[in-house]
This record gives sequence, C-alpha cells and structure tokens, in this order.
Amino acid sequence: MKKKPRVTLMGAGPGSADLITVRGLIALRTADVILYDALANPELLQNVPESTLKIYVGKRANKHRFSQSEINLMTVSYAFSHGHVVRLKGGDPFVFGRAYEELQYATSFNIETVIVPGVSSSTALVGLQEVPLTHRDYSQGFWVLTGTTKEGGLPKDFYLAAQSDSTLVILMGLRKLVEITTILAQYGKGKTPVMVIENGSLPNEEIALGTVDTIVDVVIEKKIKTPAIIVVGEVVALHPNLAKDYAVRINSKN
Amino acid sequence: MKKKPRVTLMGAGPGSADLITVRGLIALRTADVILYDALANPELLQNVPESTLKIYVGKRANKHRFSQSEINLMTVSYAFSHGHVVRLKGGDPFVFGRAYEELQYATSFNIETVIVPGVSSSTALVGLQEVPLTHRDYSQGFWVLTGTTKEGGLPKDFYLAAQSDSTLVILMGLRKLVEITTILAQYGKGKTPVMVIENGSLPNEEIALGTVDTIVDVVIEKKIKTPAIIVVGEVVALHPNLAKDYAVRINSKN
Repeated sequence: MKKKPRVTLMGAGPGSADLITVRGLIALRTADVILYDALANPELLQNVPESTLKIYVGKRANKHRFSQSEINLMTVSYAFSHGHVVRLKGGDPFVFGRAYEELQYATSFNIETVIVPGVSSSTALVGLQEVPLTHRDYSQGFWVLTGTTKEGGLPKDFYLAAQSDSTLVILMGLRKLVEITTILAQYGKGKTPVMVIENGSLPNEEIALGTVDTIVDVVIEKKIKTPAIIVVGEVVALHPNLAKDYAVRINSKN
Repeated sequence: MKKKPRVTLMGAGPGSADLITVRGLIALRTADVILYDALANPELLQNVPESTLKIYVGKRANKHRFSQSEINLMTVSYAFSHGHVVRLKGGDPFVFGRAYEELQYATSFNIETVIVPGVSSSTALVGLQEVPLTHRDYSQGFWVLTGTTKEGGLPKDFYLAAQSDSTLVILMGLRKLVEITTILAQYGKGKTPVMVIENGSLPNEEIALGTVDTIVDVVIEKKIKTPAIIVVGEVVALHPNLAKDYAVRINSKN
C-alpha cells in the first residue's frame, strides 16, 4: 500500500544525541527517509530501523553537498515515493535553519508538514557552561544574531546589539571575530567578558574565555574552529573558570 | 546506604510533555525528589516511580507558593536527606529561570550540580506556529526580553529593540502590552505584525494575531491570558492564518 506523503522538519538539538526531544525521537523512529545535516548528531541514526533510508545532505559553512533547492526537491520526491520524510537539522529548525523554505516548498505540494522544535545551541550551550543567559542583576534578555547574513556581512542590528546590556549570542560568526570585537570595543565594551564554544555539548567541546579585547588571541592560541558560538555579556563572568581566575588574582595580591 | 547528594537543574520544555529532552527524561526517572514549577507539565510526573517524592513549588506570575530562598533551601536539604534532587522548571532553566541562584546555592554546599537544558518557549512556540524566528529576507536574529524586570518595568534595552529588525520575543510581558505597543508605535512600528501565544504547545493553546496598532484589541477580544509570549516582527506575517487573510484580501479586490 502506498504510504501517505508527509514531512517532519525537526531539530536534533545542540550536539549531544540525548538532547533531542522525545517527540523528535519518536518522529525519527517512524521515518521512512531521514535527510540529515552536518550539525545533526549521526548517533541519532543508530536507533532507527535498518530499513529507514538515511541520506546525508550536509551543509556546513561554505561546503554544501546539496543546494537548498536540491534538498527541497529531495524532501518532496521522497515523501511521494516513500511516505514519511524526516528532515533532521542541527539545533532548532527555525533558528537560522532555513526550514521555512522547506516548509513552504512541501506545503505547495499539499504535503502535510509538521515542525518539531529542537533545543537551540544559542540557548543550551551557554547554560551547559553554567553561564545563565539572563540574570536579574546583569542581563534582562539575550539577543541571537547571525554573523553571516545573506550578503555575507554582519547584520546592521549588530550596531544596536553593541549598545545593549542583553547577552549577545552570535552564531556563524567565528570568521568575523576581529570585526565583531572591533565594533564592540568602539562601543566601549572592551572589558566585557566573551566566551567562544566549539562543538558544544560534544566530547570534543572546546571553550575560549576572555574579554572583547583579548578573545581573538585566546581563540588563536586554543585553535578554536567552527562550528562555534560567540557569547558576549557580563553573565560570562559567572563562568566557573573565570570566577576561579578571579579568586586566584585576588589571592595573589595578598 | 546513604545516597550521595546531587542536584539536576533542568528545563521541562515549553509545555507539551513530549518536548522534554531525552536527557531530561532520564534524569526525572532517576530522581529521588522532584521539585517542580507551575510551568512544568505535570504529565511528566506520571512516568516516574511512585516512590519518588514530588513537590510542587509553583511560581507563576506574582503568586509564589515558596520564595526563592525557600526553594534553594529545600533543594539542598532534600539532596542531603534523599540523594538526587531534580529541580524541574518550565522552558530552559537559564532563560529567566533564576536557576543560577539555585546553582550557586547548591554548589556552595559542594553538592554536585548539573544543568540539563530545555527547549525554550522563546524559540519553540514561535516555530510551532510555522513562523520562523529568523529568515534571510526579514530578520537576521531574534531578541528575547523580559517584560518584567526586577524593578517591575520594561528593560531599558526595550528602546533599542524597538529600533531593530530582529524578531522580538517578550516573555512575561502580557500585562505591559499597552506600554509595549505604545513604544513600538512611537518608533514607527505600528504596522509591524504581532502574535501573542497563550499556553503554547498545549491543548488549550490560544493565539492572537494582529499588528502593533491592533493587537491589544485582539488580545482583549480573544481573552488571552498569561502565561503568554509576545512575538513582534515581519516574520509573523508568514503565519498561515495571516497569509490566508492576505490572500482573501487580494481576492476580494478582484
């Protein structure tokens, strides 16, 4: 019997396989085809039936295996030929995920399409470092921006962000770290603490801690690479390692 | 044998029980004591052993059953007396969750404390409405702010937010909707689409759609209540109901 075509656009979470949602896990197990991104943890594919077709459509930084149009087409074609297609993306599908384009394309064929949210790296990876994104005394909010717009530059909102007290989280911004820190310093934020997290929540996680003035050197020294997120704000000073450094500094004065 | 005291500070997700993470579910099942908030779905308690002590420490808007200090103390006391305490909060524990204060208190007693991120309502509830938080053509980021600071007012960053192109998500802001829309209109955003979501992802979910100029009336008409989130930005125009209205308007002109 031919299966009804349907599509699930879902987020795999920020890295570690067990940070997927229960709803997401169930969707994976009932999929006929899984199209997965580079940022979705491949361990998630180990617990789905062997008969499920699993296709890597990896996109990472500038290396695209398939174009967005090709992925849209594959999703729809497999829904018609195989039934339930799960489009598995890193993080949350609607946080810089371009899932909306996939949703639009699938629904233009009247294919039933559902969204399953994921834990976004923009929120979770900060908390896993024991740094609160918001804090009643330091930050009344957080602002998540892309470091790389469609045109390739920083978004113009970045200049407003540089003036704000909210915790700033920049995704896809590591290659622009010099530009980012230069602008922040121009707005008087040279001493504001910064944390860069590479491969957050995974065994090969690396972090760099510093200030707007020092973080570029720390990132170079620690050889931090993409995928990485940049977190700027007073709350970063609450990171256990910085708190410890601070204690050491105080003690060395005695 | 006396169990080792430990604390897990975790997020239950945005509402629906199956939006908890797998890591979170496992933590719940191994808990000796669960201290849970009003915004954590009580269905999550049905699948934990009967022997687990489950204590409601509900905080919702201004009605606090226990003060933050009392919750801190209970968490630590139960860790010493019972072993593994899970502190279950709505959404993500570090997005306006005050979990940092609980982390600090527990670690000051040298109690091993881990953070389990949750799906934040600030990201997930928008996507579940098929509205992308970010979109390459409309919004290069999103800004999450509290509507109620420690001092009771809007955060001063709200005036910067009113000038930005990022999607704006305001938590705990429904009671300030008149003030919020007045400021946004002063910054020329009267026609910007707005969505208010009450009880997002739950069976009793309600939404209100409008613009900065009209949303207060829609919220009153639809009797929207807390807990609710407010979403402001061009991406809201992509909501299926607004797209449909738009199509109806275009057709009625022919």
